[in-house]
Amino acid sequence: MVDIANSDLIFNNYCKVRNNSQAWVVDLSAEDMVVQSMPDVSPTKWHLAHTTWFWETFLLREHLPGYQEFSTKFNYLFNSYYDRVGARHPRPERGLLTRPSIDEVMAYRAHVDAGMASLLETGCSEKLQALITLGLAHEEQHQELMLMDIKHVLSRHPFAPVAFSRAPVPAEGSEDEASTGWIDVKGGVFAFGMQDDGFHFDNEGPVHQAVLTDFALARHPVTNAEYLAFIEDGGYADPTLWLSDGWAHIQAEGWTAPLYWRREASGWREFTLHGEQPLDPHQPVVHLSYYEASAYAEWAGARLPEEREWEHAARTLAGPEVAGAQPGVSAHPSARSAPHGQLAQMMGGVWEWTRSAYSAYPRYKAPPGAVGEYNGKFMCGQFVLRGGCVATPAGHARVSYRNFFPPHARWAFAGLRLAKDI
Amino acid sequence: MVDIANSDLIFNNYCKVRNNSQAWVVDLSAEDMVVQSMPDVSPTKWHLAHTTWFWETFLLREHLPGYQEFSTKFNYLFNSYYDRVGARHPRPERGLLTRPSIDEVMAYRAHVDAGMASLLETGCSEKLQALITLGLAHEEQHQELMLMDIKHVLSRHPFAPVAFSRAPVPAEGSEDEASTGWIDVKGGVFAFGMQDDGFHFDNEGPVHQAVLTDFALARHPVTNAEYLAFIEDGGYADPTLWLSDGWAHIQAEGWTAPLYWRREASGWREFTLHGEQPLDPHQPVVHLSYYEASAYAEWAGARLPEEREWEHAARTLAGPEVAGAQPGVSAHPSARSAPHGQLAQMMGGVWEWTRSAYSAYPRYKAPPGAVGEYNGKFMCGQFVLRGGCVATPAGHARVSYRNFFPPHARWAFAGLRLAKDI
Amino acid sequence: MVDIANSDLIFNNYCKVRNNSQAWVVDLSAEDMVVQSMPDVSPTKWHLAHTTWFWETFLLREHLPGYQEFSTKFNYLFNSYYDRVGARHPRPERGLLTRPSIDEVMAYRAHVDAGMASLLETGCSEKLQALITLGLAHEEQHQELMLMDIKHVLSRHPFAPVAFSRAPVPAEGSEDEASTGWIDVKGGVFAFGMQDDGFHFDNEGPVHQAVLTDFALARHPVTNAEYLAFIEDGGYADPTLWLSDGWAHIQAEGWTAPLYWRREASGWREFTLHGEQPLDPHQPVVHLSYYEASAYAEWAGARLPEEREWEHAARTLAGPEVAGAQPGVSAHPSARSAPHGQLAQMMGGVWEWTRSAYSAYPRYKAPPGAVGEYNGKFMCGQFVLRGGCVATPAGHARVSYRNFFPPHARWAFAGLRLAKDI
Amino acid sequence: MVDIANSDLIFNNYCKVRNNSQAWVVDLSAEDMVVQSMPDVSPTKWHLAHTTWFWETFLLREHLPGYQEFSTKFNYLFNSYYDRVGARHPRPERGLLTRPSIDEVMAYRAHVDAGMASLLETGCSEKLQALITLGLAHEEQHQELMLMDIKHVLSRHPFAPVAFSRAPVPAEGSEDEASTGWIDVKGGVFAFGMQDDGFHFDNEGPVHQAVLTDFALARHPVTNAEYLAFIEDGGYADPTLWLSDGWAHIQAEGWTAPLYWRREASGWREFTLHGEQPLDPHQPVVHLSYYEASAYAEWAGARLPEEREWEHAARTLAGPEVAGAQPGVSAHPSARSAPHGQLAQMMGGVWEWTRSAYSAYPRYKAPPGAVGEYNGKFMCGQFVLRGGCVATPAGHARVSYRNFFPPHARWAFAGLRLAKDI
Repeated sequence: MVDIANSDLIFNNYCKVRNNSQAWVVDLSAEDMVVQSMPDVSPTKWHLAHTTWFWETFLLREHLPGYQEFSTKFNYLFNSYYDRVGARHPRPERGLLTRPSIDEVMAYRAHVDAGMASLLETGCSEKLQALITLGLAHEEQHQELMLMDIKHVLSRHPFAPVAFSRAPVPAEGSEDEASTGWIDVKGGVFAFGMQDDGFHFDNEGPVHQAVLTDFALARHPVTNAEYLAFIEDGGYADPTLWLSDGWAHIQAEGWTAPLYWRREASGWREFTLHGEQPLDPHQPVVHLSYYEASAYAEWAGARLPEEREWEHAARTLAGPEVAGAQPGVSAHPSARSAPHGQLAQMMGGVWEWTRSAYSAYPRYKAPPGAVGEYNGKFMCGQFVLRGGCVATPAGHARVSYRNFFPPHARWAFAGLRLAKDI
Repeated sequence: MVDIANSDLIFNNYCKVRNNSQAWVVDLSAEDMVVQSMPDVSPTKWHLAHTTWFWETFLLREHLPGYQEFSTKFNYLFNSYYDRVGARHPRPERGLLTRPSIDEVMAYRAHVDAGMASLLETGCSEKLQALITLGLAHEEQHQELMLMDIKHVLSRHPFAPVAFSRAPVPAEGSEDEASTGWIDVKGGVFAFGMQDDGFHFDNEGPVHQAVLTDFALARHPVTNAEYLAFIEDGGYADPTLWLSDGWAHIQAEGWTAPLYWRREASGWREFTLHGEQPLDPHQPVVHLSYYEASAYAEWAGARLPEEREWEHAARTLAGPEVAGAQPGVSAHPSARSAPHGQLAQMMGGVWEWTRSAYSAYPRYKAPPGAVGEYNGKFMCGQFVLRGGCVATPAGHARVSYRNFFPPHARWAFAGLRLAKDI
Repeated sequence: MVDIANSDLIFNNYCKVRNNSQAWVVDLSAEDMVVQSMPDVSPTKWHLAHTTWFWETFLLREHLPGYQEFSTKFNYLFNSYYDRVGARHPRPERGLLTRPSIDEVMAYRAHVDAGMASLLETGCSEKLQALITLGLAHEEQHQELMLMDIKHVLSRHPFAPVAFSRAPVPAEGSEDEASTGWIDVKGGVFAFGMQDDGFHFDNEGPVHQAVLTDFALARHPVTNAEYLAFIEDGGYADPTLWLSDGWAHIQAEGWTAPLYWRREASGWREFTLHGEQPLDPHQPVVHLSYYEASAYAEWAGARLPEEREWEHAARTLAGPEVAGAQPGVSAHPSARSAPHGQLAQMMGGVWEWTRSAYSAYPRYKAPPGAVGEYNGKFMCGQFVLRGGCVATPAGHARVSYRNFFPPHARWAFAGLRLAKDI
Repeated sequence: MVDIANSDLIFNNYCKVRNNSQAWVVDLSAEDMVVQSMPDVSPTKWHLAHTTWFWETFLLREHLPGYQEFSTKFNYLFNSYYDRVGARHPRPERGLLTRPSIDEVMAYRAHVDAGMASLLETGCSEKLQALITLGLAHEEQHQELMLMDIKHVLSRHPFAPVAFSRAPVPAEGSEDEASTGWIDVKGGVFAFGMQDDGFHFDNEGPVHQAVLTDFALARHPVTNAEYLAFIEDGGYADPTLWLSDGWAHIQAEGWTAPLYWRREASGWREFTLHGEQPLDPHQPVVHLSYYEASAYAEWAGARLPEEREWEHAARTLAGPEVAGAQPGVSAHPSARSAPHGQLAQMMGGVWEWTRSAYSAYPRYKAPPGAVGEYNGKFMCGQFVLRGGCVATPAGHARVSYRNFFPPHARWAFAGLRLAKDI
């Protein structure tokens, strides 16, 4: 069954997401968009092309009769990690792709958007709709990655250039005592994972039962001021606070503060997508590795939450969300207070490290085919983060959403919220 | 309350374990015992000294009045990773310690043994007894590490020298059909972790409830013959079978078979502590990384078990144990069949990789002080293995015992057992 | 004494060289010009800015009263290696400089060119003239580096893009028997180094006497066909042909052919600045390391020349030069024959590795001040090349000119000419 | 023609050199002799076996009918770098050779010595005698390497163990003003290289003419006190004193003093083969890299000598030699004064870095066969050192002797003597 009225809606949605990808980059130069500052980072141009390749590969080539691909070379260049879709350009060498130019990539986007318009002209089957929803979620993920990545690229420039000229929003109500302290959560057997029939990634399912014991969560994520106290107390110099791997890592890398902090005679400064700024003590600390989050928690006499503790609390006790990412709005996290008895900033603001290693839920099965390479093969060596961040597109994250990074990664907008046993 | 009769028993036990450490090394030369073949490996001599340092540091210095330490330099040289006990020699440089000689280390052992005799002469408090039990478990762990490590050292020699001249025991009853196939296990809410009051490491507790869904476990660990089929089917060349990190790792390292396998014109051979041998198809495959175990399971259309699945099955359905390590007996894994309806070789034989990342049980707290550094700080980047192996001292492992290694490690005696959802 | 008529001439010359730098890059995109493909390579944009910084720093700041520098940040960004001129951006991170944009760099060039016009308006002292001559030689060196570097950048792209659309010129007269064979050179005591009062780099002096014994030089540089014979004879697999370091290096890097060669089913192909081409057997082989040049010579039963052998022969027996680099003309080496009794292609074509380590001539003294950092500090770990190449600007090289690279480098347009004792 | 009387003499000589190798190691344990502290270092045991392999391979196998080799595996294990003699164990893995034991290696030595006795029983042809002389020179070189290498091994131990208990000899007459200052040397055309018919390595020939201009050499090598002044003047922090590669290297390695120096509150101390000692200001500085020698010379307003300058001066103006290495005597350099008008410590004491890259003399040809691999293949990336050192066996070095190391190496007993143009 094909539904034409619905297909208009879908195409509108498609256009909104696709346009957002381009709206983010209007201030960036061709040069900003080609450089790769570390193997984990992809150039902006690559993200713009890869998301387009996704539509071309999984939608147009398979479902639009007579579709003419834009370039036979792009499958090699812009496949990310789908082994079933053929050979691909090595990830650490994406920064060598001076060609195609950003103009050609924009033409590629237009070509594929036209194809998608054709495809949806005559309606949209349910199967197609599912693929499109996945494609939109995929493009939104890359919007967040684009922000993380261009932030890293620009941060490596000696003169802290500005990506977006809007100034970061000051913390709202962050002095509010209401948002400090702990909230107790009662244990029991609860259901976890995506529970309604909305879109979700495969790793959010299946729904399953698990046991929680009583615990408490901090009302708000750790702030810059709180994290600064850890630094000033010698946190980075005390091996007993750190995971063994973490201590080895910070020694090897010489880390003494979060990724984008810099100490000047006049005080600490923080590099943001809006340029370098004096550190705002009221905002949540961000750009921490798991190692640092874990050491902070140890220092604070607490621990990181389990991902299921976080999820259960988020379902039942969360205050208002922090607004998601929108081109033209601040792309730096800011605090938001919550009513008495509620957890502040659970959704949005900063990703929160949990102490749960990223792994399969009970009875999880990776979907067959290339799309099945999406999540399962990364279930090793990573920790789950929950809640979304200021760079996550509005509406993209969910209570069941599982982000994940290796413990040394800190170019994501990641902070932490304390937990403890009660 | 101090109990003298008991203290005799304890000292006997102490002597037995201590003597075993030395019995293992009688065939090794001073040169064998000083070399470090990779940063993960410690020289035999270092193990012999470090275990002795443990008794000196945590027992004699604190509890034997007037104890004279053997050498003021040994705390620096033979502390392993206890940050609270002071500075220490870097781990990757243990192979540079030509001094003290093995003779001095043996004298150090005798000196500390004499101290322990004095300490126990007048009885043994409960607190002391607990420390001694921990010390014995610690020494047994290092006996297994000594075997793993000397095996690696000798394997790096171009001519496959023999560590112990006893030949490996052939698989017993391994052709028995009874031990193949699957055993179904019913789900439910069960208790996990150490449940009686015997000795256990902190990471085995506290006891806690968790949910299992229905699953099946293979009757026996994967054999060499089965693993060979995976190799011959191109398992090491198909990226879709591998975790993303695993694929990158085997590409970088050029792995195409388990650690100690070598293909000759005449067939596969396996390096063992008893020299190089033709590969025995009936024995369990051993010296796999987690990456390889996971890829094999994927290829076999199954998965690795969760550690709690393994534990619950081991409590309820395990067949007879495979005999633990004893100096003078084979130090190479061999199969052992089990009666109908039981799981073969759950305890002993080979460590079995689970897909559970090594993490804290609910409400786990690391003990205070240096002893608290034992386990908690390694809860990152490692996977749990269960069941013990042929190199684990007899009586050392338990159903609740949690071993752990990073996913690329394969110098442990690690194999796998398949699981699946039912 | 200031000479105004002369200063017009000088400014004309200045404009010609400066314009050439820009003429080379007209076909390149902003993205081509920002990427750094290895630490040895600098982005095109960086070359365009650094050469400009040289004029600003050593000419305008010191000699043009009231000169306003274009940007206070550029001294940090575009200083190459002059420790006396202050801190500088690390060389391996030049590819992170997305800002300034190429447009700003072009504006910087115009600003400095205007300054130079002002400076020369009122004449030109001898001291100034000497500095300008040095600046022009410096800019020409960077023109050659730009070609080497952009060639390397584009070569790392999987689809062999074209830098300049002009096709390479076929070898002229290369079949001519006249240019094969050897030419004998009589030994004696000769003078070496720059002998007239024209411009030269400090490393070309002072003039000094040295002894040569009788030797012979090959009439022409080794051709692609000749080098191919070495490959096909197993040259890359025979350790006895290689320097010890060279053998270790080719093993580690997996080298089996010159840098830009690629074997296809249809035959060998060579990446050039004009795209990938079928290998032309008559052209001189190019993009060899010293290791490869040395192994080839060993295989051929000959040796590399000493730099003074080369220089003496070039002074007395050289045939016509190969035309130097000009924007709009082929940037790929081509052979040129020489009359009977003369050495073909001594100047131009390809740089020729000599077996002389790069070192100071007798009584050499580095000039004082920053300019003195030009050559002396590189006299370690490098070998001398002689003769210039197709990427060397016309008129830039001389018979006494000493180029130098470390023995593993092969992104220079370097080939070889055989020598032997007679 | 075979001469039996002569063959007794030769065998006596052989025994003396062979015994010396063993006399050096009497204080070392089996553990000291197996460890490899860096890839450049070989274990003592390996040296003892490799020198023996040389006799077995080039003398006994070829010239003693019916010779039975000690072990068929030793050709693989103890070949150093002779590609023509077959595959060999990788150099960086020599420290993994726990087997054969030192006792077996000593038995190997005895076996080969017995073979040599048989070989020489019936006289000695000239050809044989030449090979034996080469073998003795080779064994003496390895005696020096053994001292360098065991010094490095022991230096990596945290507690500075003593290799040999004899205390270093204090500087003799080092305060003598007669030995300070400069000695002028007149230029001209001179002959260089081995000029009589005594033994020499291939790289010392052929004799050839070369031009020297007037120069001066310092009367004595740079002392510890003089080098300390360089350190205290900030020598290691001033990039303008250093070769470009040298500056990069000391930054990367964090070097701030010679290899075996250590600063304590009480002053500088130096690790020696006789344990750690307070730094003696009067002794020659030793264990410098070429980079450090070059930077010191720059700081001192001088330069390093050319190897031919050194050789010519040594032939004509050298004072008495410093005694060569003898087991049982000090193995740490000490100064020795010279009569007025003579150069002190030219031979013995410390190797002196020259600024001459190690390269072939005019008309040099590597000898054919495996022995020809001796020197030629190392003529790349190294600098020549002249004069011998306290670890060079007495009588081993000559005025024409050319030692060579890469510029970063500093585990040789290398210091420097200043030169300047006059």
